[in-house]
Amino acid sequence: MTKLKIGFIGAGYIAGVHASILARDERVQIAAIHDVDRDRAEQMARTAGAEVAHSVAEALAESDAIYITTPNTRHTELAILAAEERKHVFCEKPMATTVADAERIERVTDKGKQVFQVGHNRRFAPVYAELRRMLSETHTPHSAHIKMNRGELLNPVWTGDPKVTGGFLFETTIHMFDMMRFLFGEVSSLQALGSSHEYAEIDDFSVLLKFQSGLHATLASSADAGWLFPFERVEVFCHHATIVTREMETLVYSEGLDGRHVERSMHQLAKEEKWGYAQEDRAFIDAILNRTPPPVTAIDGLRSVELVEAVYESVRTGRGWIEMKSVPSA
Amino acid sequence: MTKLKIGFIGAGYIAGVHASILARDERVQIAAIHDVDRDRAEQMARTAGAEVAHSVAEALAESDAIYITTPNTRHTELAILAAEERKHVFCEKPMATTVADAERIERVTDKGKQVFQVGHNRRFAPVYAELRRMLSETHTPHSAHIKMNRGELLNPVWTGDPKVTGGFLFETTIHMFDMMRFLFGEVSSLQALGSSHEYAEIDDFSVLLKFQSGLHATLASSADAGWLFPFERVEVFCHHATIVTREMETLVYSEGLDGRHVERSMHQLAKEEKWGYAQEDRAFIDAILNRTPPPVTAIDGLRSVELVEAVYESVRTGRGWIEMKSVPSA
Amino acid sequence: MTKLKIGFIGAGYIAGVHASILARDERVQIAAIHDVDRDRAEQMARTAGAEVAHSVAEALAESDAIYITTPNTRHTELAILAAEERKHVFCEKPMATTVADAERIERVTDKGKQVFQVGHNRRFAPVYAELRRMLSETHTPHSAHIKMNRGELLNPVWTGDPKVTGGFLFETTIHMFDMMRFLFGEVSSLQALGSSHEYAEIDDFSVLLKFQSGLHATLASSADAGWLFPFERVEVFCHHATIVTREMETLVYSEGLDGRHVERSMHQLAKEEKWGYAQEDRAFIDAILNRTPPPVTAIDGLRSVELVEAVYESVRTGRGWIEMKSVPSA
Amino acid sequence: MTKLKIGFIGAGYIAGVHASILARDERVQIAAIHDVDRDRAEQMARTAGAEVAHSVAEALAESDAIYITTPNTRHTELAILAAEERKHVFCEKPMATTVADAERIERVTDKGKQVFQVGHNRRFAPVYAELRRMLSETHTPHSAHIKMNRGELLNPVWTGDPKVTGGFLFETTIHMFDMMRFLFGEVSSLQALGSSHEYAEIDDFSVLLKFQSGLHATLASSADAGWLFPFERVEVFCHHATIVTREMETLVYSEGLDGRHVERSMHQLAKEEKWGYAQEDRAFIDAILNRTPPPVTAIDGLRSVELVEAVYESVRTGRGWIEMKSVPSA
Repeated sequence: MTKLKIGFIGAGYIAGVHASILARDERVQIAAIHDVDRDRAEQMARTAGAEVAHSVAEALAESDAIYITTPNTRHTELAILAAEERKHVFCEKPMATTVADAERIERVTDKGKQVFQVGHNRRFAPVYAELRRMLSETHTPHSAHIKMNRGELLNPVWTGDPKVTGGFLFETTIHMFDMMRFLFGEVSSLQALGSSHEYAEIDDFSVLLKFQSGLHATLASSADAGWLFPFERVEVFCHHATIVTREMETLVYSEGLDGRHVERSMHQLAKEEKWGYAQEDRAFIDAILNRTPPPVTAIDGLRSVELVEAVYESVRTGRGWIEMKSVPSA
Repeated sequence: MTKLKIGFIGAGYIAGVHASILARDERVQIAAIHDVDRDRAEQMARTAGAEVAHSVAEALAESDAIYITTPNTRHTELAILAAEERKHVFCEKPMATTVADAERIERVTDKGKQVFQVGHNRRFAPVYAELRRMLSETHTPHSAHIKMNRGELLNPVWTGDPKVTGGFLFETTIHMFDMMRFLFGEVSSLQALGSSHEYAEIDDFSVLLKFQSGLHATLASSADAGWLFPFERVEVFCHHATIVTREMETLVYSEGLDGRHVERSMHQLAKEEKWGYAQEDRAFIDAILNRTPPPVTAIDGLRSVELVEAVYESVRTGRGWIEMKSVPSA
Repeated sequence: MTKLKIGFIGAGYIAGVHASILARDERVQIAAIHDVDRDRAEQMARTAGAEVAHSVAEALAESDAIYITTPNTRHTELAILAAEERKHVFCEKPMATTVADAERIERVTDKGKQVFQVGHNRRFAPVYAELRRMLSETHTPHSAHIKMNRGELLNPVWTGDPKVTGGFLFETTIHMFDMMRFLFGEVSSLQALGSSHEYAEIDDFSVLLKFQSGLHATLASSADAGWLFPFERVEVFCHHATIVTREMETLVYSEGLDGRHVERSMHQLAKEEKWGYAQEDRAFIDAILNRTPPPVTAIDGLRSVELVEAVYESVRTGRGWIEMKSVPSA
Repeated sequence: MTKLKIGFIGAGYIAGVHASILARDERVQIAAIHDVDRDRAEQMARTAGAEVAHSVAEALAESDAIYITTPNTRHTELAILAAEERKHVFCEKPMATTVADAERIERVTDKGKQVFQVGHNRRFAPVYAELRRMLSETHTPHSAHIKMNRGELLNPVWTGDPKVTGGFLFETTIHMFDMMRFLFGEVSSLQALGSSHEYAEIDDFSVLLKFQSGLHATLASSADAGWLFPFERVEVFCHHATIVTREMETLVYSEGLDGRHVERSMHQLAKEEKWGYAQEDRAFIDAILNRTPPPVTAIDGLRSVELVEAVYESVRTGRGWIEMKSVPSA
């Protein structure tokens, strides 16, 4: 059987994560690796047993499917190029760093028959998959209290450069915007406050959100919080129950009204499973080979970009509620 | 030396807490205990070595200082009565259950020379006292993420009756409104969402707050969350640091950027010290004997009632920001 | 109905704990309080609404039942005196500070019809009661790993004086010796190592124990460990399960083989219930009024003293296994 | 520069861990991979960009340095073969599964100039490296309380087969025997109890240990404990301080006598750094290239095997103290 040829554009940390997962998938072969930094491409090619591609065009030419693992602000250009070349695309989050760009990608990919998947890996992380299952099957959520921090934007240094990231919220916090949709459905409106302290951008956010379902939530995200575990926590208040995730390590929920709780630890899983990377890569290859829709679509990518942009707009304008217009009313 | 005579109106749980603390204070004598439930008054009188008072008037007549420890919705009437009788008053929180009532109390007590203190005990709890010290001296706060839950409103059963409590937020969450002022200064405006699930009142709240200092915060409070520790948590994001309190048990803060944190446990303290009850009672007696201002004034009591009422108004009207008008601009 | 008259000999901290519990028990009346420190007796009498007794004899004369709450090394003399006076006796742990003394008490109390109960309160603490239930009903124990520390012997200062305590192990660690018998049955032999570092006695112990049931266990107890929670922890290894208690705060057990565990928190209980004091006091009064055997007998008190003495002997002699001879073989 | 050629004998999980670390080391090249299961060798060769060796002899012929990553009971034969062929050897723990075998290896390797390193990775894990630094520089240890469990021996299934592992203690608990020497120096004697419950071997151990330094320790290790975190914990009692490691995740120590503790989390490190694998592989290559002694020698490998064998002997004979004779007295 011919193996699916995979190319990478961008040879940084996350590319290595995907490559080492794909190296164990018998259905694929890593064919080409491109990076603007030639040394980095060579090192990754050596580890992955692949060839260096000297240009984006060459990487596209030698691949059936492309992983876009560059800095955030280059995703749009490359995603559109790859889609136009009729390649299957795995685009790391954020899909784009403006709604206008995300919409362009969505329009281009909507027409093709190729698979286009966005790297919102947390949907596949066992803690979040289990949380969603609980919220669907056993615990109707009433409200939620969510935080996602970074301790600093110094390491690696590009995380502090909005020209690379598109802005702090686009880099990691965007996962929580996707996660809220995944867990609670569409946001109908939101309102945010922000401030700037350590970095040359808004680095502290407080957000209030309404969902179409009636659920409401608070979200805090700080770029300068110091590395105190958990950096990421979702608390959901339900019928006489609280369910909490702490990063992708543990899922805790109260059971009954007598102070008993159950904790599921993902401590024994390898990080690539615990964080959902292995599952999202398998799902991408499955979608290509089985000609089925990918589990995280360009629409999902667009929606999370819309939410981030709405938060920035709310902070900038200081006005009242920002309505999420593009979402059809329930 | 003549001992200060203390009376209690209301002989429930919190009265017992104060009485057992005062019993060890050589400067005072518990003189009279009144409760609409005669048996309850008698039992408390027996434990405290005090006399039962058969009416409010009798309790006032036999006391220099009065603890108002009745259900919330009776505080106003009794506080005004006691103040008019020129008694020193320790009024349990909430000072009142409407802003109008709180203002009436404030006006009455403002004129007298008697001490009027409100039972916002958490200000005296070592975790919060230490947190405030850190925020004043070593860590400028940028934003905060706060929750305070109850697991249910079934036990004791009156906690589910707004005619007794004034509404869920007046019962326990009001502590967090006082705490936010204590830690971060005055709130300038707020906005809230609420919903009703298990109880005959709004029982789930999400709140976004702006402070005069520029700080912003999110607050979640749920009446039906199940008893998952911590029920009460304040997270403050500072310059490359997070400081977290978990109930009145522990204070945790990140130190440096390498994943180290320091945890101070109050595990060894008796509950009455850990929760600040012993300190607030000593402070009340100190203020009376030394003729100094009490550490928690009627203005403080009023402000926290204003904040709770603003949250209810915001949820009810669904409009934009509620400005906290009574606070002079900074 | 005539109330049972209770006297206290010793008016320190633990006396106050029992008195405040008994004050709420309608079946009893605190009649007399004696302490070598007259001021202390007076203060406790005031709080408890009781009379000061000017001598042990007077305290005995005015009481039906006596709480012996003096320093450890005075327990024997007073326990025998009270038993000879045909009083019901609640003797705080340790029952005595030598096996010879414990045997004398046991012989005296064995003959009478009076209730003699030893203050091994932990048996009544919900975490330990539940642990025992689990070990009896659902989880056969294979082995155990136990520690009980103090952080220091400086506060209160008498905790560092073996003339008062009988030795570090008699003061608090003795609870774990009683607990091991309660959970696992009789110890058949043990072996111990000890060393002396900060204090004028052996202050660090490592112990290996065999039980008649075949179970084996390790125990560590250090007098100078610093106050790191939990100070007291029992870990029991069972069939594909671990059950852990952390002080009297939480009971945790693994469930299944997939990294899930259940945690029961006693966080909401008042300390007197959480630590079993309220339950042991009720049980003592029950035994007197119902003429039933007390739940913790002089034999239990003796056995825990034997175990502590065996540890000291093992450390002193450095020889092999110390056989627990007094226990009939299973 | 010619790269150092590395061969692997054994292509299971731990081989993959080392290979993926070595793949990023520019000084080496993975040359040959052998496994009795040809498919497994091929899969690992593909991922590592290496060749399959069809025999042990071929693997040795094509390599300068050999990783022995087979089941435990084959280590001796292969270690001796490789040493006789004058290869540098990285031998996974346990070095052997009998003292006699470990001594044979030690004699063979002692004569050569080649590097022989044993895979006691935990010495390099940051939590343990930092613990050792503290015990050397700032905190003299008095005693220790240690546990290391597995939750079961079912997965992978060979962990329950002593013919493969050499016995439960040889598989993972041996790390703790090496760790105790690393932290506290040589054991002078020990005594152990064991029992058999779920598996066809002794699967529950309680051990008491004396060290040459005077330190004493308790160790519990259970094969059937259920997966309750932490599986591995070292508690060291020092001068008014406790230092605790929980797996290789966190290092906690009490600071002062007021209930404050400091916690260092290794949460952000990749597992290969957190567990010390990356550091031990770098150290092995360093030792070869710099002609310096390896940090974990055949003597270290032998000593940990001696301790495990002494525990089994103690359990089997039920006699008194087992003296560790081979260790020269201090």
